[in-house]
Amino acid sequence: MNAIYLENGQLFVRSDYEKPQLQPGLARLAVSLAGICSTDLEIVKGYVPGFQGVLGHEFVAVVEAVGSPADADWIGRRVVGTMNIGCGECATCLSTGPEHCLARRALGVHNWDGVFADYALLPVANLLPVPDNVPDEAAVFTEPLAAALRIREQVRVRPSVRTAVVGPGRLGLLVGLMLALDGTHVTMLGRRESSLALPARLGFTTGLVDGFDDNSFDFVVEVTGNDAGFSHALRLVRSLGTLVLKSTFAGQSTLDLTKLVVAEITVIGSRCGPFAPALRLLAQDAVPVRALIDGEYPLSQGLAAFEHAARSGVRKILLRP
Amino acid sequence: MNAIYLENGQLFVRSDYEKPQLQPGLARLAVSLAGICSTDLEIVKGYVPGFQGVLGHEFVAVVEAVGSPADADWIGRRVVGTMNIGCGECATCLSTGPEHCLARRALGVHNWDGVFADYALLPVANLLPVPDNVPDEAAVFTEPLAAALRIREQVRVRPSVRTAVVGPGRLGLLVGLMLALDGTHVTMLGRRESSLALPARLGFTTGLVDGFDDNSFDFVVEVTGNDAGFSHALRLVRSLGTLVLKSTFAGQSTLDLTKLVVAEITVIGSRCGPFAPALRLLAQDAVPVRALIDGEYPLSQGLAAFEHAARSGVRKILLRP
Repeated sequence: MNAIYLENGQLFVRSDYEKPQLQPGLARLAVSLAGICSTDLEIVKGYVPGFQGVLGHEFVAVVEAVGSPADADWIGRRVVGTMNIGCGECATCLSTGPEHCLARRALGVHNWDGVFADYALLPVANLLPVPDNVPDEAAVFTEPLAAALRIREQVRVRPSVRTAVVGPGRLGLLVGLMLALDGTHVTMLGRRESSLALPARLGFTTGLVDGFDDNSFDFVVEVTGNDAGFSHALRLVRSLGTLVLKSTFAGQSTLDLTKLVVAEITVIGSRCGPFAPALRLLAQDAVPVRALIDGEYPLSQGLAAFEHAARSGVRKILLRP
Repeated sequence: MNAIYLENGQLFVRSDYEKPQLQPGLARLAVSLAGICSTDLEIVKGYVPGFQGVLGHEFVAVVEAVGSPADADWIGRRVVGTMNIGCGECATCLSTGPEHCLARRALGVHNWDGVFADYALLPVANLLPVPDNVPDEAAVFTEPLAAALRIREQVRVRPSVRTAVVGPGRLGLLVGLMLALDGTHVTMLGRRESSLALPARLGFTTGLVDGFDDNSFDFVVEVTGNDAGFSHALRLVRSLGTLVLKSTFAGQSTLDLTKLVVAEITVIGSRCGPFAPALRLLAQDAVPVRALIDGEYPLSQGLAAFEHAARSGVRKILLRP
């Protein structure tokens, strides 16, 4: 089958990759559509040292086969799936779930082949059916929309406070759209005017990061994906304010932490989120996710797709097996 | 009068400093005893650019005179005092108090002469009487003990979780002693064996920072006062854990923020705390603060006192006018 494969920091499109073998509890998915996210680009740059395998974790698929007869009802269903595969036995798995299992594997990120392929495996326990009225082009955004919703799982999001999202990229826009759902006034901040056109079209107040004074916002979400993002966000948040960090990237940040302590800022790291509410929002057509699509490529043109996704200002690039 | 004065990064003991002049609402304090804290040492190193004036904000004193007749009852009382002087008119001052007023001055730190002097000024509103059974040598710890208690004002401190304090210095020990009050098992971590002798004598489990695996603690307080502290603390805290930052220092930290995001750590900056509960703890003799005293100097030997306080492993050095 076709697969986009990373080895020694080099990306290949392979047409000879072996179709994955089922095991009990697993489902084999015929991938319908997959999305390239910033984490994929960072993995190519070395964010996950030693990663070797098929990339990709944002997808919608149809269950082709299952490894356990008891799961036969899943065959033929259109699904999305969560990316963390825990050990299933530790206290973390049994209490909060697989997201923080220290032995976890992660679809397309860590010790588990991803979805930039004709077929992929996932435990049936990771699957959720996609409502019929959600097209594939929207369902493929379930994973990043869930990541945006994670913020609401972690902190009280007060709709009356001055809220900013730093980084109007593929995930930043979803975060902004999610925060705006309850009437929150969200300012989307970027480093270049060109990055603000789409946020403005989507109805956001927009601005350049450098165009706002220190302490201008009560609540700031950092989704820049680069090492300067934290400093910008820390500058913009007021004393006793809250800063949510969404960026994962390869590299170090050099920071003056004085403000964090003196202004008593709360900083919250935020990663994977809940799929069920994300699917409900997509079924309500409450978030215009398809406005983020900047291109679609067949899997065989995966390298061109990655090159496109890495260009400045580009949001979602899809891959269709 | 005598005063320890900082100008252009140079510390002087001045004997000719003018006794401060009263104004309405202020009290003039005859300083009985003052303590050198790490912030004072950092200010000398350049932590507050452009600071010029008398250092010092930890003290116990007797009110010598007041600027308003209505405050005459304060004269002769033994007091401690909070260090932040807000504008008194902004929304921050009127709601949460002066600690985060953007126009605030701060005793011995920012635009307000401090207490390493025979006399100092503070608004009467900043003063609290010291209970008779609290000796000066304990009362002088009110400010740093309040800073330790600030943690309880900010986060739920669960006594059943694995708790570590990174940095067994003058403030770190107070944080540890405060956390232990409710039965919490606190591990005090240092970079050198020599720094662990006093914590061990005080009953703490102790260890070297490098002697613990990643993710060993649920709750970590960073009080190292140096740029490596955050990285150590971040390494030690588990997924979904909480990290409180207490260190303020001059300089930048170079950090890999990946764990903060991936492990969804909550980081909370923490600064000044409530004096009234600190005084109640001291009146109960609940915290053996005097065990931290490593020396006492007359004001005239202020430079020797600062040199002593800056030595590795030294905790509290007191100054007696």
